[in-house]
Amino acid sequence: MANFGGHAIPGTFFLLYGFWLTVKHVLQHYWRTSQPKGRQVMPPFFKRMDYAEGGVKIFASFVGIMVEQFVVDGPHARLYDRENTSWVKLMNWQHSTMYLFFGISGMALIASTAVRAVPLGVDRLALSFALFIEGFLFMYHVHGRQPLDAHIHTLLLFAVFAGSAGTMLEVFIRNNLILELFRADMFILQGSWFYQIGVVLYPLTGDKWDLNQHDNMMFVTMCFAWHLALSLFLVSCTAFLVWFTTTRFSEKGRDIEIGMRIASSKTSSQKALLEESDEE
Amino acid sequence: MANFGGHAIPGTFFLLYGFWLTVKHVLQHYWRTSQPKGRQVMPPFFKRMDYAEGGVKIFASFVGIMVEQFVVDGPHARLYDRENTSWVKLMNWQHSTMYLFFGISGMALIASTAVRAVPLGVDRLALSFALFIEGFLFMYHVHGRQPLDAHIHTLLLFAVFAGSAGTMLEVFIRNNLILELFRADMFILQGSWFYQIGVVLYPLTGDKWDLNQHDNMMFVTMCFAWHLALSLFLVSCTAFLVWFTTTRFSEKGRDIEIGMRIASSKTSSQKALLEESDEE
Amino acid sequence: MANFGGHAIPGTFFLLYGFWLTVKHVLQHYWRTSQPKGRQVMPPFFKRMDYAEGGVKIFASFVGIMVEQFVVDGPHARLYDRENTSWVKLMNWQHSTMYLFFGISGMALIASTAVRAVPLGVDRLALSFALFIEGFLFMYHVHGRQPLDAHIHTLLLFAVFAGSAGTMLEVFIRNNLILELFRADMFILQGSWFYQIGVVLYPLTGDKWDLNQHDNMMFVTMCFAWHLALSLFLVSCTAFLVWFTTTRFSEKGRDIEIGMRIASSKTSSQKALLEESDEE
Amino acid sequence: MANFGGHAIPGTFFLLYGFWLTVKHVLQHYWRTSQPKGRQVMPPFFKRMDYAEGGVKIFASFVGIMVEQFVVDGPHARLYDRENTSWVKLMNWQHSTMYLFFGISGMALIASTAVRAVPLGVDRLALSFALFIEGFLFMYHVHGRQPLDAHIHTLLLFAVFAGSAGTMLEVFIRNNLILELFRADMFILQGSWFYQIGVVLYPLTGDKWDLNQHDNMMFVTMCFAWHLALSLFLVSCTAFLVWFTTTRFSEKGRDIEIGMRIASSKTSSQKALLEESDEE
Repeated sequence: MANFGGHAIPGTFFLLYGFWLTVKHVLQHYWRTSQPKGRQVMPPFFKRMDYAEGGVKIFASFVGIMVEQFVVDGPHARLYDRENTSWVKLMNWQHSTMYLFFGISGMALIASTAVRAVPLGVDRLALSFALFIEGFLFMYHVHGRQPLDAHIHTLLLFAVFAGSAGTMLEVFIRNNLILELFRADMFILQGSWFYQIGVVLYPLTGDKWDLNQHDNMMFVTMCFAWHLALSLFLVSCTAFLVWFTTTRFSEKGRDIEIGMRIASSKTSSQKALLEESDEE
Repeated sequence: MANFGGHAIPGTFFLLYGFWLTVKHVLQHYWRTSQPKGRQVMPPFFKRMDYAEGGVKIFASFVGIMVEQFVVDGPHARLYDRENTSWVKLMNWQHSTMYLFFGISGMALIASTAVRAVPLGVDRLALSFALFIEGFLFMYHVHGRQPLDAHIHTLLLFAVFAGSAGTMLEVFIRNNLILELFRADMFILQGSWFYQIGVVLYPLTGDKWDLNQHDNMMFVTMCFAWHLALSLFLVSCTAFLVWFTTTRFSEKGRDIEIGMRIASSKTSSQKALLEESDEE
Repeated sequence: MANFGGHAIPGTFFLLYGFWLTVKHVLQHYWRTSQPKGRQVMPPFFKRMDYAEGGVKIFASFVGIMVEQFVVDGPHARLYDRENTSWVKLMNWQHSTMYLFFGISGMALIASTAVRAVPLGVDRLALSFALFIEGFLFMYHVHGRQPLDAHIHTLLLFAVFAGSAGTMLEVFIRNNLILELFRADMFILQGSWFYQIGVVLYPLTGDKWDLNQHDNMMFVTMCFAWHLALSLFLVSCTAFLVWFTTTRFSEKGRDIEIGMRIASSKTSSQKALLEESDEE
Repeated sequence: MANFGGHAIPGTFFLLYGFWLTVKHVLQHYWRTSQPKGRQVMPPFFKRMDYAEGGVKIFASFVGIMVEQFVVDGPHARLYDRENTSWVKLMNWQHSTMYLFFGISGMALIASTAVRAVPLGVDRLALSFALFIEGFLFMYHVHGRQPLDAHIHTLLLFAVFAGSAGTMLEVFIRNNLILELFRADMFILQGSWFYQIGVVLYPLTGDKWDLNQHDNMMFVTMCFAWHLALSLFLVSCTAFLVWFTTTRFSEKGRDIEIGMRIASSKTSSQKALLEESDEE
């Protein structure tokens, strides 16, 4: 992974996952707030979204582990080299471990969606663990590197551990849109910061950054704040777009629904429905 | 900003903002506790206060960014100097970044006041982010300075991060007067501490402080506790004054209101209203 | 304070305060659980306890400040010595500052008991601040001392900050006996640890402890755990005694009450009352 | 304890305790969710489980303390050696202290099960204290050891303090299966990590690990993540097995129960019961 591509690929995945989470949770929130209090059973559409998300996570983690193990200079599933009495390619093994935990979080998502006996929040706990393990391994990873290299990875840890803490909170505080979008935002921030790490450590243009200059560290710190601002902007825009589109479509849908009901039976419930649509 | 004025100006802003928050939240609390449970819709007066607050924040942030960029020795919106291969005036860029996040918190306040679909608490989250970014940038700012300079800025971080944590809590615990006044208090503490930093690092009288003396650090630590006591005193007095004035005025107002109601229709609800005013 | 007595006096105060809190909160808890749900207004007896506690706190803090300032070798309210350009007796000033905050917490307790408009929890917030400031000043106090001296004060911080955090939680979680007894326990632990500090740093028997020996630090760490066990034992015994005594007395009282009621009017409510007393 | 067995014995205890907790809490959860809302009194079976758990804890702690004190090279209850002016076998005293707190948590469990006046959550608070003291003593234990030895014990602290924090949360959030299984998981993780420490520091095969090699530390960090994954797997499997078995058995039981009720009285409540069993 010690090249630009090795940072761009996970960055892209995290970015996409962040956007997916934004869309999913805004849709769920719209559904929650627009339903009358009586019918609170999630429609099967949301279940299918969760199955898809879990499946993609498991698949991507599996592919990630395979690639880390069986690339040309990978460990090929060998952990210890008895001849040289040394560990084989620990970096690849560490990345495999990170993928493993994201795979576990995918399994937890599918299990908690499919099986009613699995307590609510298990999926969030598993995701929180996955982020924690990612941060935990990165943390001990960073020792003894050059200052800027260490610093830029330390900044990544802010996004990772904040995401882990926020997701842990979601185990207890369910259906809170702010927490859900915070999670999405931390994934987007993480994704865009992976790109930034790639740009700084493996610049495409050839000009190498001085990894010991104090001004570079000051800039990178500030740059992290800009990435945060950018990620907030992206999440807000996406959420607005999804909300706007959904409201438009569902208003049309509801007009039709109401129309049909009026046609079939002019009951008193019709008034309540009209009032409901006025409120929004 | 490396002079007394550069610390007095933000200090004044933070002080004024702290007092504004105290007044606003005591008024809101009075309104919340004095309303009968039926009519819980915020009167438009409070909405207008929030619009004003958000507008001032956005405007002040914009002015702040412009000043930091286009003062005589500012970076003039240039970030990197290719000739000297060095960053241009990173300090001014960092301050601009801090202002940017306070501007964002102003936008979030206006958005969450104006648009019903924006979830409650987004304004607090944005303010918490603004304080976090302020503390985050200051934290990495401080490395390698002289002991007293580093220490006095570290103490500022207590006020900043405590404010950020308290504001984050408000995302989940709404309408809690203690948390709201805690936030106001942390802004006042921050403001008065900015003045203290100015006094210590750029004394107006000419006697320079010894930035390496251990006793000076001990004094400054204690002085921070005194500022906290002072800020608690100021918030309490302001809150008392606002509460006292409001109670006086609204009692008169209610007497008139009740009088009119009695005149127009002697209903049974009158008794309830009288009992209610007795209770307070 | 640099002698055994200077540690024994605050230690005694904290111990007594811890026991007082245990008694007070067990009584309040008994009252809360034994009342039928209808009458939830605190009896005036508890109000008087809080007034007394607040008054003693303010008085003791005032005396403490006076003593620290006007003992023979105290600063006599002089802060800065212009002749020697040095601060005067900062240690005494720091202790005065700590007392000041405990005085403030006393005022907050009286204010929140007497004035209904003061929001619930202000007294806990002020006490949490007092403990925080105590720990905060001790923390920066400790730098540059000999290892065992620094370590034994660092251990004190565990009790102080744990107490502060627990008391802060009580702002939000009211009437939770466990949190209330935790607070009492931390005060008792603090008090007994003050004695331990006195014994180690200013031994009465003359044998000085080696302040650099690693084994002494190991022992002191373990000793802190023993103090915790002791404080838990003391709080449990006190709580049990208070509960046992109260139950005994109030059962007698209630039998008489019920007896009188039966005599005056044999109503159906009598049965409910009897059932209630059976349940306990 | 400086040998493999000295790590395997506590490891085995923690592993067994983790599995016991998993079984106990899944059974309790099953019971909670399957009961109709009316009858919420815990059946005596669960009380007996808690008595047994508390009794075993007290007994095991007592035996542990005795062994630590009276093994051949133990301190034999002597704390200070006046002749050599040194502490006697502080390591054994520290382990005794840890056992003492687990014994206290056993007493708290029995007290809170047997006596109704003991507030709910006291058992969790005491267990949280026991874990905290374990971590607290280990923390100061580790100073000045060789890098790998220090690191492998530091990793243990993650499991210990996470367990302590989660158990503390349970004082406030009762009957949350996720928190309960988290606690069980942290005990299993701790237990298996004790084995790992034994394997690394006192290898059975003779090949000593190089305690200064950086790669060994990287491997051990990753290995901790694998132990976490393993513990999650073990808890999930155990929980699934217990749930599956219980559902099977209780379905049979309920069918019989329903059958008898139908036979004795064909009431309308029968329909409700059938619906209830359909739902699961």
